[in-house]
Formats: sequence, C-alpha cells, structure tokens
Amino acid sequence: MGRLAWISLVVVLAAVGTGVYWSYDDFDPESLRGATVVITGCSTGIGEEMAYQYARLGAKILITARRENRLKEVVAKAVSLGAQEAHYVAGDMGKAEDCERTIQTAKEKFGRLDYLVLNHDGSSVKNLHEKFGKEESWDDDPDMDFFVDYLKINLVSYVRLASLALPLLKESSGHVVVMSGIHGKVPFPTLAWGAAVKFGLDGFFSSLRVELIKAGQDVSVTLALVGFIRTPMAEKMYENKEGGQAMLDMAAPMDQTVQAIIHAGATRAREVYYPAGMVWTFAKLRAFAPGLVDILLTKMEM
Amino acid sequence: MGRLAWISLVVVLAAVGTGVYWSYDDFDPESLRGATVVITGCSTGIGEEMAYQYARLGAKILITARRENRLKEVVAKAVSLGAQEAHYVAGDMGKAEDCERTIQTAKEKFGRLDYLVLNHDGSSVKNLHEKFGKEESWDDDPDMDFFVDYLKINLVSYVRLASLALPLLKESSGHVVVMSGIHGKVPFPTLAWGAAVKFGLDGFFSSLRVELIKAGQDVSVTLALVGFIRTPMAEKMYENKEGGQAMLDMAAPMDQTVQAIIHAGATRAREVYYPAGMVWTFAKLRAFAPGLVDILLTKMEM
Repeated sequence: MGRLAWISLVVVLAAVGTGVYWSYDDFDPESLRGATVVITGCSTGIGEEMAYQYARLGAKILITARRENRLKEVVAKAVSLGAQEAHYVAGDMGKAEDCERTIQTAKEKFGRLDYLVLNHDGSSVKNLHEKFGKEESWDDDPDMDFFVDYLKINLVSYVRLASLALPLLKESSGHVVVMSGIHGKVPFPTLAWGAAVKFGLDGFFSSLRVELIKAGQDVSVTLALVGFIRTPMAEKMYENKEGGQAMLDMAAPMDQTVQAIIHAGATRAREVYYPAGMVWTFAKLRAFAPGLVDILLTKMEM
Repeated sequence: MGRLAWISLVVVLAAVGTGVYWSYDDFDPESLRGATVVITGCSTGIGEEMAYQYARLGAKILITARRENRLKEVVAKAVSLGAQEAHYVAGDMGKAEDCERTIQTAKEKFGRLDYLVLNHDGSSVKNLHEKFGKEESWDDDPDMDFFVDYLKINLVSYVRLASLALPLLKESSGHVVVMSGIHGKVPFPTLAWGAAVKFGLDGFFSSLRVELIKAGQDVSVTLALVGFIRTPMAEKMYENKEGGQAMLDMAAPMDQTVQAIIHAGATRAREVYYPAGMVWTFAKLRAFAPGLVDILLTKMEM
C-alpha cells in the first residue's frame, strides 16, 4: 500500500469518525437539572471546567481535589453559575479512606448518585506537569516508585471509587464517566507509564460495562478519550517552548471538550473521542495497522 | 446489518487473521541454540512447557517460580531435553528484590540476555485457580486488596523486570515476550481485574516498543494473546464441571500455543494471537463493533 493510499485511508476514517460522533445528539440538558454528580480532580483544568458546566445545567455537585482553598473557590463559582448544591471533599484519592469519605459524603448530602465522573490525575512522587512535559522515554528514567504511585492514584482509586459508588448508581440507573486520553487507546511514546494506566482503565471499565449489562443493571459506563486539549497545564508546558504557541493554537478548546464529555455521559455513550477526527482515527487505525501507527508515532513531536 | 451479515464478517475476519498468522514463518530454530533466556512463572502450565521447548532448541535458560522443589524438577527435565544450561531463581516476582535477583543471576550465569519471557501469573491474596473459575463479576465481590496485589505481581513486576533487563537486552539486540490473553484486548466479563492488568501491559509495552524504535534500539517486544488453552489449570477448573469436558476438547493444545509464542518472539513479531482465528477476530472486531462484541460477550459462558 502506497503512502497516498494510507493517507486516503486516514482521511476516510477521520471523516467517518467525525460523522459517527456528530450523528448522536439526543442530549437533553434538562436531564441534568437536579442531577447529583461527583467529580474528582476539580482544582484546575478539565475537572474545574466540568464543575462549572454541570453547575450551569443546574446539577448538584460534589467535587474533590487535594487543595481545600481551591475547592472553596470552585464551589463558590459553581454556586454563582447555577449549581443547585455544591460541596467538596478535600482529599487524596490515592488514599482508600478519602475515596470512602467522598462516596459517603455524596450519600449523606444527596441521598442518591446519578453521575460519578472520574477525572483526577496525580502523583505524590513527581510533579506531573514536569513529567508530561519532559518528553523522556521510560527507559531514560525507569522510575518504579513513580509508576507504583501513579497506578495507585490513577487506576486503583478509579476502581475503588466506582466499586464504592455502584450500589448508589444501580439505584438511580446512573452513569460512570471515566477520563482517559489518546494514550488510553494508542501507545504514545514518552507516556508508557500513562498508557499502562489508561489502557488499564479501558480493560477494567469496559469489562465492568459488560458485567453490568449481563446482570441487567442499568448503569452506563462512558470512556472519554481526549486528545491535546488547551488546559492550563498545556499552556504552562508549551507557552515558553519553541513552536509551543503553534501547538497551543492547534489544541482543542477546553469548554467544547468538556461539553462533549458531559453529553456523552448523559446519553450513555460507550466512548467519546475529542477532538473526534484525530483521536478516533488513531485509535481505529491502531487496530488494523499497528505498524503504521508505530511509525507515525515515532515521527511525532510530543 | 443483519445477523447473517455479521456472521459473514466474523468468518471473513477469522480467515484473514489465520492467513496473516500463518504467512510469516521465517523462524530459524537454530537461532535459539545457545541463546540465553529468562522465563518467569515456570512451575506449571505454559511457563513449564516454554522451559522445555526452549530446552529442546538448545537454549540456556533461567527459570523462576515460588516453589523451589518444582523448579528443581523442571530444571532437571530441561537439561535432559537438551538445554545447554538450566538455572533457577526461587522467588516471588511481586517483590522488587526477587526481580532484581533474577536479572542479576542471569547476568552472572550467562553474561548476556537474549530473551526475557514475562509469563508469571499470581496472587498472594487469592487462589487464582479459584478466582478464574468462579465466574463472578467484579461487582459481586469488589476485592480491592486482591486487585492491588494482582497489579503488583502481574503488571508492576513485568515493568520492573523489563526495566532491569533493558541494558542487557540492548547489548544483545534482544527480545521481550509478554504473556497476555484475549482479555488483554477484549473486555471479558468476570475478568475485569485481569483485563485491567492485561490491557495495562499492552499500553506499557506497546509504548515501550515505540520508544525503543524511536531511540534506534534493536530490542523487539512481542505481546502474546492467547485464548482458551488446555493448561493444567484449565483441566482442574473444567474436568468436573457440567459441559467441562466439551470445553476442554475445544481448548487449544498447550504445546502448539507455546510453539507459536516462541516463533513470534524469535521472529520479532509485534503480536501473536493463539488460537489465531478466535482471539484475533474478537480483538479486531472490538475496534469497529464494540457494541456487537459486548453483546456476544454477555451471551458467552466463561
């Protein structure tokens, strides 16, 4: 297959992906008025934006993060934007007791749970801003302590929070939304540690989805696969870098990304790709032409 | 799309998969004479069979497992079958020091390493025989202690062993072979915990492969995706079960499975599917028709 044929294939797949993505829009914003939502990792970035968008839709939210002062600010803004209720749990989701406290608080405050949005991303060993921006392959610095910690905070806690919330979610025919990224479907270089976690989330939550269907439980599971989004972290990483501004201009806007994820959760979509063309195409292409994807990835600046 | 059309699609994909699988056979058994091979989890099943097949090909092997008495027996048989050398490390790969001791021993005994075959599967919290056979969905018994332990032994240790071995493997243009299963590509119900680990291995090792290509390092990474194999564990699980004998008769023979994996490792294949038709078809179908695969999986007896 020649180069042109491959490029054509990519373009066709991208078009189909975008088409599929835009064709389902049975989203009813009213369904979120009064809905009870737990969102983790809300001190900044996508989580913070999510809190505001759920707030604008009139939801009751409970948000978590480690920094209490930031949570207070986000809660205040969420209330001003229209949240029916807004609460927070300051805690580290890497700790079992903080996960338990989060779900327990949701139960006490709301009495029910409609949405569990698993979004936090953290490490107590390394600064993730640094780690993401370092463009370092695993082999240059195989940091096992970081890897174990990253698994604990970003995979184990997702499974733990979902397990704790399932009894509530079953009662309400609720929704689980799991944040992932292109490295949850595509083996991105310099993110081997992150791909381990995000692929792992796909394995666990996609199996859980099948188990729930099999058991006749009406709980939806949505995996959100986001590409390069213009988050505050991305801005910090790229603004002073050579060619960084061009990268940032190409990045998907955060508000539209969050909107797509909220839609997908509410409409019980299995997966949402954003921006659809790029992420969907890479993910699908990987299944049938993994060698080609490997080559494309080795040529990519991260 | 009607039922017949779907079935036709599955058949066509299966045929293509089998064709692709059988078309690459540039395997030279002589390349393994004197090759140095570390294989983990060799007290029974696929690992034990692997030790014997590498032995027959005249390799120098170092095997690991927890039970020293079993390792002594396997080493003795491997030598009688033609292994140029056979050593063992009795240890628990869930422990960092045992991983370090394994790679250190390989260095001391062989002075080089051509193959790292990551195959062990274990838990110190639960009997895996029981866990695999229990057909229990995660939600019926969300055992977080087991999950954390399973991650440690089956994901963290794979990453640790590979990281420790990479300097040796780079020197020898060596090979990493990573055992996975159909639940490393397909979200099998009742195996959510296992899918988290096996998908995670795909994420990590496929990213590592891209990083190695990018760095110009000639170390191959092979992911072995096996379906239902007639291992001693499978026999124990199914022999006294209703319909169990029929299941076992359908299972792929262990010797052919191991042969396929050894070939794939030696020929630097990216992935090997065995039995090819079934596992490959499910894996590929999942990329384009995940909803269909979910339905097929809910209908499947595990």
